[in-house]
Amino acid sequence: MLQLQTPPESAAVPLEEGDPAVDPRLFRRCLGQYATGIAVVTAQSGQTLNGMTINSFASLSLEPALVLWSIARTSRSFDFFTQCQSFAINVLSAEQIKLSQHFSSKLEDRFSDIDWQPGQHGSPLLAGCIAHFECTTEQAFEGGDHIILVGRVSRIARFAGTPLLFSQGQYSIADTHPSAAGEPESVGGAPRPETNLLSSIFDAHHALSEAFEEHRRAEGVSLAVARVLASLYARPGIGIEALARETYLGQRDIEDALGELQRKAMLHKDSDGGLRLTAEGERARLAIRERWQAFQKAQLEGTSASELKITLATLDRLLGRQKAASVASA
Amino acid sequence: MLQLQTPPESAAVPLEEGDPAVDPRLFRRCLGQYATGIAVVTAQSGQTLNGMTINSFASLSLEPALVLWSIARTSRSFDFFTQCQSFAINVLSAEQIKLSQHFSSKLEDRFSDIDWQPGQHGSPLLAGCIAHFECTTEQAFEGGDHIILVGRVSRIARFAGTPLLFSQGQYSIADTHPSAAGEPESVGGAPRPETNLLSSIFDAHHALSEAFEEHRRAEGVSLAVARVLASLYARPGIGIEALARETYLGQRDIEDALGELQRKAMLHKDSDGGLRLTAEGERARLAIRERWQAFQKAQLEGTSASELKITLATLDRLLGRQKAASVASA
Repeated sequence: MLQLQTPPESAAVPLEEGDPAVDPRLFRRCLGQYATGIAVVTAQSGQTLNGMTINSFASLSLEPALVLWSIARTSRSFDFFTQCQSFAINVLSAEQIKLSQHFSSKLEDRFSDIDWQPGQHGSPLLAGCIAHFECTTEQAFEGGDHIILVGRVSRIARFAGTPLLFSQGQYSIADTHPSAAGEPESVGGAPRPETNLLSSIFDAHHALSEAFEEHRRAEGVSLAVARVLASLYARPGIGIEALARETYLGQRDIEDALGELQRKAMLHKDSDGGLRLTAEGERARLAIRERWQAFQKAQLEGTSASELKITLATLDRLLGRQKAASVASA
Repeated sequence: MLQLQTPPESAAVPLEEGDPAVDPRLFRRCLGQYATGIAVVTAQSGQTLNGMTINSFASLSLEPALVLWSIARTSRSFDFFTQCQSFAINVLSAEQIKLSQHFSSKLEDRFSDIDWQPGQHGSPLLAGCIAHFECTTEQAFEGGDHIILVGRVSRIARFAGTPLLFSQGQYSIADTHPSAAGEPESVGGAPRPETNLLSSIFDAHHALSEAFEEHRRAEGVSLAVARVLASLYARPGIGIEALARETYLGQRDIEDALGELQRKAMLHKDSDGGLRLTAEGERARLAIRERWQAFQKAQLEGTSASELKITLATLDRLLGRQKAASVASA
């Protein structure tokens, strides 16, 4: 805390700004800037099981041990979860994108073909998750178009694995921060060629990811729109659920992308719900691909064909060793 | 929803499990499995400014636009934030680790040497963040040793950049999910050598990250303990704040790691608060480094010195191009 001062001038210009009451989609995009894990909340009530994918989970209190999440008043499962006396939070691992999609689908029977066990209050605990929180419903608070549900945690478990993330509208994984990478192994140790290669791969990967991102922004097309364009081009007539599986985007981001394509006259909807590009949409897709290929080629300027071949072989050998090791240990 | 069935048997064994009331540290480790973004909540009250780093931010309601976060009753800023009438949520970018540490430090004057501007209610909006949410305090709910603060959002802004994450006790960045990588560029397009190299780097990076992680687990030492060991070995006498900056770990994870080292008689505390390893601690550090170097060497078996050199040069050229481009555009 300090006494108020004249703030320095700042030059950062927002990509977009406004009033969330006027533009709820803008509000969603801003919310998407805050990354979250993904969990499936499950419960049993009487003879009925239910589960849904959420990313509103948050820790609340250590003593007593409390967690919270929130549910939309319009959710089909609203009555179920606001009335049941216990629930479990299953934190998804990076390998569980399909499970995330499974529990956000409209399927009626969500438990028959997946692996689970009942917890101490009967709530299904899903296999393959990296944490389970078994809770009794402690309180419910009003929160606009949602209700905040607070659970008292009675039993917890932690499993090996890394978390699945949702960040800026897409499924992601967590990666060591570049500033911390190389630590602690490099601290105080003389650099060796093998250490160099491993950290070069790390650095090259991060630098390329950033360059890709900049290239994409320069295209003036969001990642969601680019992925949807590519999928519709490759599989004309695809349905919206298959499109979600294929693009690894969240449901709302796909809807927004389809809306944008429609406004630009790039989208055609078949009478059976199938989606395809118009000639205008196909042109947009091909233009993106062409610029993308030129970008990739520019990255490799100065590298000869034989150097490229050796580099690929070295990386593939590394990759092959990892794959062989993971099969052997499975 | 479905009628209750006999659940299939599941073989997953937890790393640890228990009752959070008995073991609050276990509870914290389980909570750490759910990744979060990082935000700084700021506010002005009278002539006083305040700000603190949080990871309890969550979206709550679209219409009306509401968000929530929670504050510990023991926080020095508890009275300030529970009494002030408005606040701003600043979502940190991957480049803002230092800002995250700045606003979780014990510094009194947190606003004099950073770049910010007052929002419409006077709450400081921090430069370089990827989203701003300006809120008026709508409600406060009891939540055990915390209070849930609900804000009504009146103004939002989104900026370019990727989010800073906190995942499994360490700062991280979000990376495209491996299943989605290569999409949409590869869909429907014939593979070319340059596309292969870029996706090989991506694949090699992910495979190596996983192999590193498995190797680390096999060591029986947590990432936090390994980093703290390495830092203390390289800089004997380091203070706890410098240790936090150097290891990129959260404050509590460092405290847990130091506690573990102390129990194993690996840690010595100087009278001035400086930390250093005992002979036992140094032995542990050297043993880890030796096994680490053997692991790295094994990864490169079958790659000749000249192949390694060419691969390194290709990757460095890629990296150099990225660095040059980012300097040019800055």
